[in-house]
Amino acid sequence: MAERIKYPRSHKVYMQGELYPDIRVGMRAVEQVPSVRIDNNGEKHYTPNPDIYIYDTSGAFSDTKIDVDLRKGLPRLREEWILGRGDVEQLAEVSSKYGRARISDHSLDSLRFEHIALPYRAKQGAKITQMAYARGGIITREMEYVAIRENMNCRELGIESHITPEFVRREIAEGRAVLPANINHPEAEPMIIGRNFLVKINTNIGNSATTSSIDEEVEKAIWSCKWGGDTLMDLSTGENIHETREWIIRNCPVPVGTVPIYQALEKVDGRVEDLTWELYRDTLIEQCEQGVDYFTIHAGIRLKNVHLADKRVCGIVSRGGSIMSKWCLVHNRESFLYNHFDEICDILSQYDVAVSLGDGLRPGCIADANDEAQFAELDTLGELVKRAWAKDVQAFIEGPGHVPMHKIQENMTRQKEKCHDAPFYTLGPIVTDIAPAYDHITSAIGAAQIGWLGTAMLCYVTPKEHLALPEKEDVRTGVVTYKIAAHAADLAKGHPAAQIRDNALSKARFEFRWKDQFDLSLDPERAQQYFHTGRHTDGEYCTMCGPNFCAMRLSRDIRRDFNKE
Amino acid sequence: MAERIKYPRSHKVYMQGELYPDIRVGMRAVEQVPSVRIDNNGEKHYTPNPDIYIYDTSGAFSDTKIDVDLRKGLPRLREEWILGRGDVEQLAEVSSKYGRARISDHSLDSLRFEHIALPYRAKQGAKITQMAYARGGIITREMEYVAIRENMNCRELGIESHITPEFVRREIAEGRAVLPANINHPEAEPMIIGRNFLVKINTNIGNSATTSSIDEEVEKAIWSCKWGGDTLMDLSTGENIHETREWIIRNCPVPVGTVPIYQALEKVDGRVEDLTWELYRDTLIEQCEQGVDYFTIHAGIRLKNVHLADKRVCGIVSRGGSIMSKWCLVHNRESFLYNHFDEICDILSQYDVAVSLGDGLRPGCIADANDEAQFAELDTLGELVKRAWAKDVQAFIEGPGHVPMHKIQENMTRQKEKCHDAPFYTLGPIVTDIAPAYDHITSAIGAAQIGWLGTAMLCYVTPKEHLALPEKEDVRTGVVTYKIAAHAADLAKGHPAAQIRDNALSKARFEFRWKDQFDLSLDPERAQQYFHTGRHTDGEYCTMCGPNFCAMRLSRDIRRDFNKE
Repeated sequence: MAERIKYPRSHKVYMQGELYPDIRVGMRAVEQVPSVRIDNNGEKHYTPNPDIYIYDTSGAFSDTKIDVDLRKGLPRLREEWILGRGDVEQLAEVSSKYGRARISDHSLDSLRFEHIALPYRAKQGAKITQMAYARGGIITREMEYVAIRENMNCRELGIESHITPEFVRREIAEGRAVLPANINHPEAEPMIIGRNFLVKINTNIGNSATTSSIDEEVEKAIWSCKWGGDTLMDLSTGENIHETREWIIRNCPVPVGTVPIYQALEKVDGRVEDLTWELYRDTLIEQCEQGVDYFTIHAGIRLKNVHLADKRVCGIVSRGGSIMSKWCLVHNRESFLYNHFDEICDILSQYDVAVSLGDGLRPGCIADANDEAQFAELDTLGELVKRAWAKDVQAFIEGPGHVPMHKIQENMTRQKEKCHDAPFYTLGPIVTDIAPAYDHITSAIGAAQIGWLGTAMLCYVTPKEHLALPEKEDVRTGVVTYKIAAHAADLAKGHPAAQIRDNALSKARFEFRWKDQFDLSLDPERAQQYFHTGRHTDGEYCTMCGPNFCAMRLSRDIRRDFNKE
Repeated sequence: MAERIKYPRSHKVYMQGELYPDIRVGMRAVEQVPSVRIDNNGEKHYTPNPDIYIYDTSGAFSDTKIDVDLRKGLPRLREEWILGRGDVEQLAEVSSKYGRARISDHSLDSLRFEHIALPYRAKQGAKITQMAYARGGIITREMEYVAIRENMNCRELGIESHITPEFVRREIAEGRAVLPANINHPEAEPMIIGRNFLVKINTNIGNSATTSSIDEEVEKAIWSCKWGGDTLMDLSTGENIHETREWIIRNCPVPVGTVPIYQALEKVDGRVEDLTWELYRDTLIEQCEQGVDYFTIHAGIRLKNVHLADKRVCGIVSRGGSIMSKWCLVHNRESFLYNHFDEICDILSQYDVAVSLGDGLRPGCIADANDEAQFAELDTLGELVKRAWAKDVQAFIEGPGHVPMHKIQENMTRQKEKCHDAPFYTLGPIVTDIAPAYDHITSAIGAAQIGWLGTAMLCYVTPKEHLALPEKEDVRTGVVTYKIAAHAADLAKGHPAAQIRDNALSKARFEFRWKDQFDLSLDPERAQQYFHTGRHTDGEYCTMCGPNFCAMRLSRDIRRDFNKE
């Protein structure tokens, strides 16, 4: 069960902290071959090209010095940091009734992750969230970690960056950024979600009734980290959700999110009307203690607003939103998520779980974009984010969905205003409804734009969206597509480190350093595979254009023959 | 050799002209199944759904009443219209020396298209371009055709449209739109390129030295028309360019463009320095008489500007641009394209060939975007477009290339200003350099944005860009991706007919009319194929979410149970 992620001609480098010299931030360094110039005597002159540093989401899986055994899970990187703060305690048993029942059910032994540690929780009265620390003026190891991580090797290259540990602290304190870091997921490497940082991407995995196994889901999780997924949501709705999640979290180097209402509904066999606050509460605690880093909670669904979706072409398309809407109508009551929201935040704050305020009334087609239902819910989310912050709970806001390009800006502007600058986390948006099987593309168009406008995290969409659950190759295509959207936004926003990689790849392209061009790209394997369909030559041109028509070769000839080089 | 394009559950409809009742504009009508409602007694109630009209680029290939024989070519739709105007004459033989040599070379007989008609040319002194007619106040059949075509069935649906035959005439007269319509390509169905119309897409095909055959190129051309390519550029640089082009034009229902310098360079065996005006001139005439509808001409390369590209990361990446730059430097002279530009326009005007002013200094990486070289050339193109218009030659302007998102707007603003509102025709732009093998996506992000800002035509990019020549499946992916970008731009610009299809597909999605959802999509085959990977049920949910989690089913239940429907 040893697992490894390999990148071509790359090695892992670790950058040390300054405030905390014990922290080591892993990055990927891509090696390049030298540039070659041939002078008039036919002699070759070599100029070395530097290693290019790449933000690395693959954790220990790509460190050749570490053998990750999936049965034991990843190294518990943050455990010492957490314990060192002296404000958490280890529990004698898990607090959730359901969790205890699963542990004592021996029919599940064969499925179970073996090395489950007992969970941690805040000591009575202790404020242990990154937001609480930040507000108290404390720069944590997690904060310095993300500052180093965001800058890659800017400092070494002499590129100035606004991102310092103190900057990170302030962004978290003021709610503009979230650093998801459940104390029960010490395996995760710290990362940050906020408009003034690199745009992040989330990938969704998870089984549904009767499809796919635990092994497959863990494999997809690692696969997502390989290609660059910054966080991972486990949206399982099938069997053995509890056990599947344990395996994923223990082996996941990035923060994990869930939608707890899905599991709660499984527990009542799909009968929406039977959902209760007590059941949901137990589910929250169960997942907090497993180590989920953020929860999507559809507390913005209000009884008075549900009917606003009646006029729509596509009604309600959020699963959580439709579940809570039905619950409100069946009981003719305000939802327990809304009514108990402060209590929810009290629970989350004890583990430093962040809340992702779900957009249950997001539009499911462009005709429904920016309508009354959607914006009424956004107003509620703006109220809830303040209630979360009052409990030091980190919070961000989910957004659409299906939105044509000319209506994207309004989403961002309103979200900023109504939600007090909390980070925005959108699904796409998809800019036209007419391209099922290509919705990774329709949505990347919208995602790049909304990312540029300030959205902090983009939830990926795969080619299978609207059609089927994604398989492994779909995850790869979805992640790479969203890396493109996020990176395009980083360039447009002027993130200090963003363009280094573009320039290195383009220089390699101009100099016919094909291997460097592949290995600096988002998907070296596919680039190389496509290249080989072209029956290429070894010379300074290829069968795309042939020798007479290679613009780059002609252009280099011009430089050689007509410049005083 | 009978060839046919099939679309699922679609039939061809023809809409008649009003000014010219003899014109019949072909469209595709997609049939839908009725909506079903089940009442409380379990009885089913059916409401029919209308046919949805789709802009159709497939010409006679999708008309089940016509058998297209590739050896004979497509019906010559416009020939009567052209002859009816009485201002052209049929020549006794082709005018180009090279063309005559090819015809009399019997070793080529086996390759040759059999039914070559003798070419037409304007009568001495006659002004036969669509621009000349438009300026003279004449609405041609071509103009009414495109007005009907752009509106699809808006009129029948009671949707108002600004696009009238008179509007089309004015846009062409003022140079804001181009209607490519070589009198020697009467097989092409009229279409229009301009900011106030549907955004169009171009696809590139063509062999290079020793790869692919004539059959393959014709197959790719028809394939491109099937998926929605609005124009087609044949960029062949390999063997038998002349004969390949004949086959393509005779079987192509959309306008065909070329870059004549490629063939000229083949004629001098790739020796740039041997290119001459006389050779190029003969090549232009050869291609005008075959029926090419527009030429990319890199007349914007000026001796004084070539060195502006020296500082670049990627130098010159346009093939035509690098050829002409080298020619200028070798001879230390202004290029023959620039010096003879008026004479070029005189030739083009005799056949109504449009000129696409090539951007030979477009940036080849984002580091080079919007630089002095690029914008100096744009200034020259602005001068040339006026010279083209002075000869009644229709003209448009080519644009980049590689541009990060925040630099896209400046391209459009400058182009409008410097080029006097002539249509803009861009390649992408690609918004980041780091994703070879996904450049259809990196470029669709830029294309959608620049299309929204007013670019009239988008040149597609395939997944093989920068790596190899596109194969058939790459053409499909490239075309569909660009249909997405163009359609997203149409929606954002508010084209009156654009959203009909989105709304119909979304309604079908909400009502679980899967077949309608597939058949209304840009790629019904792929959507259906992905759907079937999902082991779907027949009920009103699928294995994506399972029955408990289907938001749309829950949402429909809510409407049924809680509304007074």
